[in-house]
Amino acid sequence: MIRIMMIGDVFGRSGRRALKDNVVELVREHKIDLVLANGENAAGGNGITRENAREIFDAGVDVITMGNHVWNKKEIINYLDKEERIIRPQNYPPGTPGMGFGLFKTKNNDVVGVVNMSGRIFMPELDCPFRCADQVIPLLREKTSIIIMDFHAEATSEKAAMAYYLDGRLSAICGTHTHVQTADERILEGGTAFITDIGMTGPRDSVIGVKKELVIRKFITQMPQKFEAATGLYQFNAVVIDIQQETGQAVAIKRIQNFE
Amino acid sequence: MIRIMMIGDVFGRSGRRALKDNVVELVREHKIDLVLANGENAAGGNGITRENAREIFDAGVDVITMGNHVWNKKEIINYLDKEERIIRPQNYPPGTPGMGFGLFKTKNNDVVGVVNMSGRIFMPELDCPFRCADQVIPLLREKTSIIIMDFHAEATSEKAAMAYYLDGRLSAICGTHTHVQTADERILEGGTAFITDIGMTGPRDSVIGVKKELVIRKFITQMPQKFEAATGLYQFNAVVIDIQQETGQAVAIKRIQNFE
Amino acid sequence: MIRIMMIGDVFGRSGRRALKDNVVELVREHKIDLVLANGENAAGGNGITRENAREIFDAGVDVITMGNHVWNKKEIINYLDKEERIIRPQNYPPGTPGMGFGLFKTKNNDVVGVVNMSGRIFMPELDCPFRCADQVIPLLREKTSIIIMDFHAEATSEKAAMAYYLDGRLSAICGTHTHVQTADERILEGGTAFITDIGMTGPRDSVIGVKKELVIRKFITQMPQKFEAATGLYQFNAVVIDIQQETGQAVAIKRIQNFE
Amino acid sequence: MIRIMMIGDVFGRSGRRALKDNVVELVREHKIDLVLANGENAAGGNGITRENAREIFDAGVDVITMGNHVWNKKEIINYLDKEERIIRPQNYPPGTPGMGFGLFKTKNNDVVGVVNMSGRIFMPELDCPFRCADQVIPLLREKTSIIIMDFHAEATSEKAAMAYYLDGRLSAICGTHTHVQTADERILEGGTAFITDIGMTGPRDSVIGVKKELVIRKFITQMPQKFEAATGLYQFNAVVIDIQQETGQAVAIKRIQNFE
Ligand SMILES: [Fe+2]
Ligand SMILES: [Fe+2]
Ligand SMILES: [Fe+2]
Ligand SMILES: [Fe+2]
Ligand SMILES: [Fe+2]
Ligand SMILES: [Fe+2]
Ligand SMILES: [Fe+2]
Ligand SMILES: [Fe+2]
Repeated sequence: MIRIMMIGDVFGRSGRRALKDNVVELVREHKIDLVLANGENAAGGNGITRENAREIFDAGVDVITMGNHVWNKKEIINYLDKEERIIRPQNYPPGTPGMGFGLFKTKNNDVVGVVNMSGRIFMPELDCPFRCADQVIPLLREKTSIIIMDFHAEATSEKAAMAYYLDGRLSAICGTHTHVQTADERILEGGTAFITDIGMTGPRDSVIGVKKELVIRKFITQMPQKFEAATGLYQFNAVVIDIQQETGQAVAIKRIQNFE
Repeated sequence: MIRIMMIGDVFGRSGRRALKDNVVELVREHKIDLVLANGENAAGGNGITRENAREIFDAGVDVITMGNHVWNKKEIINYLDKEERIIRPQNYPPGTPGMGFGLFKTKNNDVVGVVNMSGRIFMPELDCPFRCADQVIPLLREKTSIIIMDFHAEATSEKAAMAYYLDGRLSAICGTHTHVQTADERILEGGTAFITDIGMTGPRDSVIGVKKELVIRKFITQMPQKFEAATGLYQFNAVVIDIQQETGQAVAIKRIQNFE
Repeated sequence: MIRIMMIGDVFGRSGRRALKDNVVELVREHKIDLVLANGENAAGGNGITRENAREIFDAGVDVITMGNHVWNKKEIINYLDKEERIIRPQNYPPGTPGMGFGLFKTKNNDVVGVVNMSGRIFMPELDCPFRCADQVIPLLREKTSIIIMDFHAEATSEKAAMAYYLDGRLSAICGTHTHVQTADERILEGGTAFITDIGMTGPRDSVIGVKKELVIRKFITQMPQKFEAATGLYQFNAVVIDIQQETGQAVAIKRIQNFE
Repeated sequence: MIRIMMIGDVFGRSGRRALKDNVVELVREHKIDLVLANGENAAGGNGITRENAREIFDAGVDVITMGNHVWNKKEIINYLDKEERIIRPQNYPPGTPGMGFGLFKTKNNDVVGVVNMSGRIFMPELDCPFRCADQVIPLLREKTSIIIMDFHAEATSEKAAMAYYLDGRLSAICGTHTHVQTADERILEGGTAFITDIGMTGPRDSVIGVKKELVIRKFITQMPQKFEAATGLYQFNAVVIDIQQETGQAVAIKRIQNFE
């Protein structure tokens, strides 16, 4: 059995502090073999810097996945090609900096394939994530049966459709992007673990990470607001998935919510 | 103390069966005083008929709220003006058939105000739901301090912003529309209960209610598909909220998920 | 020199009548070698039937291009594979019925390549039209230097970007979809003729083809309306493009507007 | 008879130069009584500064209308309340800085009402422009029968629907926002002049004003690009409308395109 923890969008300073307070402890307590975190909001809500990434890795995260905010901090563009532990959605056009998938070793030398994918409903115009998954999963399966997808998408329909489409072909599909954890974690018939959204690891008293006054003002006035990350107490949102090594099938998925 | 149950989007035959199997039992067991259900998908996923509504009321629901699918079945247009127990989003233009809010009596003669509202992000172009809430809540507060909003919206940011905006002015804001229950139920500082989405009451093995093959085919081919409600075992998604009568403040919100 | 006429979205009965009244006459008068028409709205505004197509070909059109309404009439799905003179946007997923480009002979046995492409801004989630053009244009150039694209798209920015991107690689890019003719026809530096939108061939006294009362009611009420094609006097919208055979470069593009 | 010129979105330095080169001359030549210009892109494509506005007024423009870019330059927020000659879309929420309509005197002391309105299709979530027009037009009609609307909108359907909806209630509805002039100018039955879009006054060799390489790169890579206004030769896009003073009915609308 292999146990993987996947952490929902790490948002700003508060989110990074949550990692420091929780990851090492949870890894020890739950004997977790590999830790993934979505880092698209690490830098004050907007993208990720090299320094943020270092901080996240230092906190015990093994792999960082991204999403629509991947390019917000310009420095990441060059950094991505050097840092294999950060992946961005695979369905960006060919030639995009960085990679959309990777193979990562656990402490026990088990190999885990991780894919990052972006939805298209209410999202940027990327390549078809379904066909993109059809291409990338077999590449990973040549090396390992344990494959995890971070499906960064808005629409619940697109996330559920992807999960059923890929059921049996990978170990887990975990949604990110909405910053709200859903209560629908389950193992599908084919052995694929699924949750619509892992949620957000960041400031709890906020509108999906942002200072609530600013977002409210935006909705009320329809005038642009410079969004700032909220500060204050954090929430830590993650899932822990147990996977049979031989088959790559998930046997359990469990939601985690820790609060400061 | 008053206890209200609010049920997530009732989807098709399977969803209506879930009501029959669960509502009366839950009401008795939990001593629930009033039952609300979102009925926008009652008729095979698309709108609601008079017959569906009768079935839902017979199952023990006291008030039906709606959403973007409200007009899918034409017959409802006339019916809405006669049936005060069905409300549609209040932020439709003035002159729209039906009402967007109402006052409803519990078995103990407590009066509960219910408002239905629609979001605007990735949704139809309706009136501003924030300003609309500013208008309607005082009207209800003249009659009762117990007020519940079904905020039918897609974006998590719009739902959270509304919740914080109205915190302290009503008893509960419960999101609907995404058909996936979220795990973020809580009582805000001002005493307003909030959950981003209650989820769906309908066929479990489906893409948010629809036969999964059809939705997958839609995404893969980008060709139109006639969507049909999935059949089979149901899930029942709801929340139960406890409210102090004098203040209208919520003291507890609890998620419910029952499975066939 | 070769002269091609391209006709904007043919809308309903009124649009089909416009073809009968104008095409043969214009072809004779202007010595036109090939006639293309966008037929996505031929069937009462919604898609095209086999019978509509026959009528359009009989009126003197040589090639029919389509757009987002291509699948509205189910019968076309099988018909497309048999009728090479109808093409649908090339950037539908591989495996889609029909073809997105073709080679067509003029009366003088000149070969013209025609490509149909769809935009993605405010449009369905298809494959990247820029990369798709990169793939298909070389295939056509192996056979002919005369290549015309119907770029069916909403956003003026996407249309202009495509035109500049492909300038010098094909003879003409003509936009369709907005149903309003633009006054920006020109020859770009590399010899590619461009117009943002050819406009609509259909009922003039209408909201882009539809009965105006119905569209106004839709906007005012935000309730669904069954749209019907307007009737009455037509407008005929087209462009005529002159192309040097040897180079494939356009030397002239002229707008046509005839009114009943 | 009164003659009004309305100039399409003035884009960057190149657009401002176009005003200096053309407005005074056209006013003299055509005996124009009032000049309106959409200024939402005056500041390098993004909003307008006080200095830009001064430059535009100095070039001979009497009234500046705006659009979705109105707030891009922060300084305008305070300036709007002091400068009555700049109006922003009227259907922003009540309480928004500035005004959405105004009364302006021509050299001959004729009074012209000008309204700025924003569409909602593929645009920000503002108040219903149709109902907003119903409110504001009677206010203006109390003072004058000559009323012009700049309807800043993306969708051709919304623009045409508005034109037919208001036909006979004002003198002219001219669309802006797409930056491409349409060739559909006409007088509707009720005497209202209409054009779907006046076009853009700015750099010709560009993608709707922006350096074409940047926009192409955006579409190809789906990575954010810092957009810059193109430089180089300009195009000047406008319409001239003749209106009967007594009735407020338009008798002629003529498109203008000047090139550097
Ligand atoms: Fe995020
Ligand atoms: Fe995201
Ligand atoms: Fe629903
Ligand atoms: Fe809904
Ligand atoms: Fe069309
Ligand atoms: Fe179209
Ligand atoms: Fe503009
Ligand atoms: Fe604009």
